[in-house]
Amino acid sequence: MTLIVSLFLALQAPVALPAPHDAAAQDWRAIPDDEVMIMRLPGDRTVVVRLAAALAPAHVANIRRLIAAGWWNGETVYRVQENWVAQWGDATEKRALPSGVAASVAPEFEIARFAPAQRLMRADTHSAASGITADGWPVASDRQGHAWLTHCYGTVGVARDEPPTSGSGAELFTPIGQSARRLDRNYAVVGRVIEGMQYLSALPRGPAPMGVIADPGARTPILAVTLASDLPADMRPRFQYRAADNVRFAALIHHRENPPAPTIGSGGADVCEIPLEVRRTP
Amino acid sequence: MTLIVSLFLALQAPVALPAPHDAAAQDWRAIPDDEVMIMRLPGDRTVVVRLAAALAPAHVANIRRLIAAGWWNGETVYRVQENWVAQWGDATEKRALPSGVAASVAPEFEIARFAPAQRLMRADTHSAASGITADGWPVASDRQGHAWLTHCYGTVGVARDEPPTSGSGAELFTPIGQSARRLDRNYAVVGRVIEGMQYLSALPRGPAPMGVIADPGARTPILAVTLASDLPADMRPRFQYRAADNVRFAALIHHRENPPAPTIGSGGADVCEIPLEVRRTP
Repeated sequence: MTLIVSLFLALQAPVALPAPHDAAAQDWRAIPDDEVMIMRLPGDRTVVVRLAAALAPAHVANIRRLIAAGWWNGETVYRVQENWVAQWGDATEKRALPSGVAASVAPEFEIARFAPAQRLMRADTHSAASGITADGWPVASDRQGHAWLTHCYGTVGVARDEPPTSGSGAELFTPIGQSARRLDRNYAVVGRVIEGMQYLSALPRGPAPMGVIADPGARTPILAVTLASDLPADMRPRFQYRAADNVRFAALIHHRENPPAPTIGSGGADVCEIPLEVRRTP
Repeated sequence: MTLIVSLFLALQAPVALPAPHDAAAQDWRAIPDDEVMIMRLPGDRTVVVRLAAALAPAHVANIRRLIAAGWWNGETVYRVQENWVAQWGDATEKRALPSGVAASVAPEFEIARFAPAQRLMRADTHSAASGITADGWPVASDRQGHAWLTHCYGTVGVARDEPPTSGSGAELFTPIGQSARRLDRNYAVVGRVIEGMQYLSALPRGPAPMGVIADPGARTPILAVTLASDLPADMRPRFQYRAADNVRFAALIHHRENPPAPTIGSGGADVCEIPLEVRRTP
């Protein structure tokens, strides 16, 4: 009798069919090791950034040179502004850059083309169109054909002085609150945090209005920043992103834009709220 | 000579003219004391919430009864999910509600009318129109005439079980990351944090996926929640909001949608990135 009941239950048990918006095995693609920037903070806290090598090549090249020169080792996260950004690098902003590192890089506020694999179907925010590129980056464009990486929570951008050309990549920031469209085409997007975001977002806020932490001892030290490709092969953390060049990702966007009942929804989704999944390579 | 130079400098000194988007004195209006919810955490951390008494009246009435019964005193902030929400109340979700408090309140996912003082001019996110009400709340509407308070960073919403009618206000949450449109018309918005947001947003994250902190000792205790109107008159913190029923607020939205050069901007702004200023009454 027990056997029969068990068999009955087994037959009745719901089979976990994948939803139309679940990733298939082939949707997971490797992130190259030289696009994986690893920032170690004290207390076993590691922040991992995926660099946008194809979409901000000049800045990423400079950032790789900064990493090779050990630029961030011993520097700090020195600015944590509530509902704005966490920022790291040289708090004095006066230290000489290592030789071979460009002091300024031509702005990469825009990208060459707008060919997202998956567009948001609804009129999304602030732009003519937005969507997710095949390799998993959020982009937007205007009616004049300009296209750009959008700033979202966890995006990594290049801090700079007043002149738009004054950014080198030596000072980086990530939004830790409401994403703000006025950052778009104003600061170069060079990556996004793919692991350990909570070690930046949950830092105690610096004093208003700018969140700069005046006391060096109160800043969060950066032990070291490395590229995964600089580590011995067997020590590299390896990551995969979920590619957007498939019907399952299109279904994911549709699902976010039209959540299932009883949720009414708002008839759309922000480009920044489409989940851009990354996982450790199984 | 020194006098002449000083005079010259005084004449040359830029006069700090207000910008067209700066608030005028008459734009600052009092928030009624019975709409000011004060949550005290240990270590002199105080979180202040403005209650949306006019737009979610049934829930706010219930919340006032919960405050009067001391519901949150001794409870905790027991859920802190990275890039999602901080949530507080009874972690067991089993404690009996005080007498006189409704166990569930008819959903107030929408508001009766959409009459914002200032609309966002561009096609903004996810909806036919969005804007800021005269008294400083972000709202959106669809093409069918439905209107609702939008969830933004710092908005206070009512947690609930599966049935949409199952929320009482006893469990509250606030988004601490990217605002998500699928919360809209799904959870009742009852207020927004106007002071001390950093004491919720910078809390250590609970474990994934839900951020619920299993160890009661690791949760953040709530010492007491009170209404300002329950305090002696001379002990009440008093707040003013910036009203949106004026050309200066319209100029503010325009400024956010069209940032000054050299910023290119994206040609728009999200309803959640329009600053809704609140200040202590001078």
